[in-house]
Amino acid sequence: MYIETKLRSLLKAISWRFFATLTTTIIIFVFFGRLDLAIAAGLIELVIKIMVYFLHERLWNKVKIGKKKIEPFVLWFTGLPKSGKTVIADKVYEKLKKWEYIPIERIDSKDIRDLLPEIGFDRESRKLHLKRVGILIKILQKNSISVVASFVSPYKETRDCVKEMTKNFIEIFVKASVETCIKRDDKGVYKEALEGKRKNFTGVSDDYDEPANPEILLDTEKLTIEESADIVFEYVKKRFYKDL
Amino acid sequence: MYIETKLRSLLKAISWRFFATLTTTIIIFVFFGRLDLAIAAGLIELVIKIMVYFLHERLWNKVKIGKKKIEPFVLWFTGLPKSGKTVIADKVYEKLKKWEYIPIERIDSKDIRDLLPEIGFDRESRKLHLKRVGILIKILQKNSISVVASFVSPYKETRDCVKEMTKNFIEIFVKASVETCIKRDDKGVYKEALEGKRKNFTGVSDDYDEPANPEILLDTEKLTIEESADIVFEYVKKRFYKDL
Repeated sequence: MYIETKLRSLLKAISWRFFATLTTTIIIFVFFGRLDLAIAAGLIELVIKIMVYFLHERLWNKVKIGKKKIEPFVLWFTGLPKSGKTVIADKVYEKLKKWEYIPIERIDSKDIRDLLPEIGFDRESRKLHLKRVGILIKILQKNSISVVASFVSPYKETRDCVKEMTKNFIEIFVKASVETCIKRDDKGVYKEALEGKRKNFTGVSDDYDEPANPEILLDTEKLTIEESADIVFEYVKKRFYKDL
Repeated sequence: MYIETKLRSLLKAISWRFFATLTTTIIIFVFFGRLDLAIAAGLIELVIKIMVYFLHERLWNKVKIGKKKIEPFVLWFTGLPKSGKTVIADKVYEKLKKWEYIPIERIDSKDIRDLLPEIGFDRESRKLHLKRVGILIKILQKNSISVVASFVSPYKETRDCVKEMTKNFIEIFVKASVETCIKRDDKGVYKEALEGKRKNFTGVSDDYDEPANPEILLDTEKLTIEESADIVFEYVKKRFYKDL
């Protein structure tokens, strides 16, 4: 979030004066037909009005009228391990950050571990964990911050729970078949799961409820990371920031 | 956080025009001595410049120059149970919220329990818990949000840890003797602690390291809640928002 500094007010005053005095001088010239007087009046106006404009800006800085509170959203990326959630979410976050119009935070199942203690991967633990993530998002949204979140979040029930807790929840289903995910698996997590070394592994030894009506479906077998990120970014702009 | 709406730009244009056209008309009148022409030129200016001003505002809305990123702070209220931390912190939060210039969040040992699971009151648990609080504050500050936090936080070590993790950490020592706190104890927590029903109770069965150099010391045996809150609020304004 930003504060309007005095420097900004001054720069605006000068920039405005350029356009405004030009207009005034032309108006006077058209009315009186005398360029010398038109320019003289313009010069006087130049000096006086820069000061008046500056004070006008400072005054408006105290007035809240017409300032619209930002409506924060959540981009919730769900999908199998290795479907591409994190990498696409990272890219979307980068784009939104660079865009600069809204405050935005990134939450990933990995970074969240420092804040929220690790718990198990059984159904109840996953539910509790994502409920806590929901509380965190709520705190952020209360302060106008939107969130890019990526979690396997395999159960419809838990995704719905976060959806209910938060505002403008956008479910983004990052789709890839288990076979594709296994092919992409550079860390060998699927291998370990298939060998039984990892319990409750989504897609192997635990269910994944495919979203029935996601706001956005990204088929990563057909779309590149860049294309997927663009789709999400454009969706956000169209849906929430038409007015900018 | 807020967005500058088109309505705001329009209202500013109209408000500006009132002052500016008045100035122009006076300048023309002084130069040419003809009130009729001065008013006619003023009227033409009125119409043209409202449009030019509006466009100028919209243009500046895309420009970031002179917008200063808000420097978020933490007001960290520490003190014995029943010293008055929570009630003073609540009042300060209310004041800052009403002030409207900065985004502000309130964190209390009580509300935080939904997000961060309850852990014990032994030294290690307290340290871990406050470290997590520190991580949460860091996330909020990254998004320009300042925090009003109230925690017993009895150990110097843990307070220093949060201080190091965060920006503009203001330690506020809410002072009251154990005797005074016992007198204020409407819930009987001290009684339970003295009877041995509560373990590791700060001030009874666990140490409280008094802050050696707190930024603000509030002696609640001498100051009312309102006075204490005013002191903190004025401190924040003086230290961080001289320019507003």
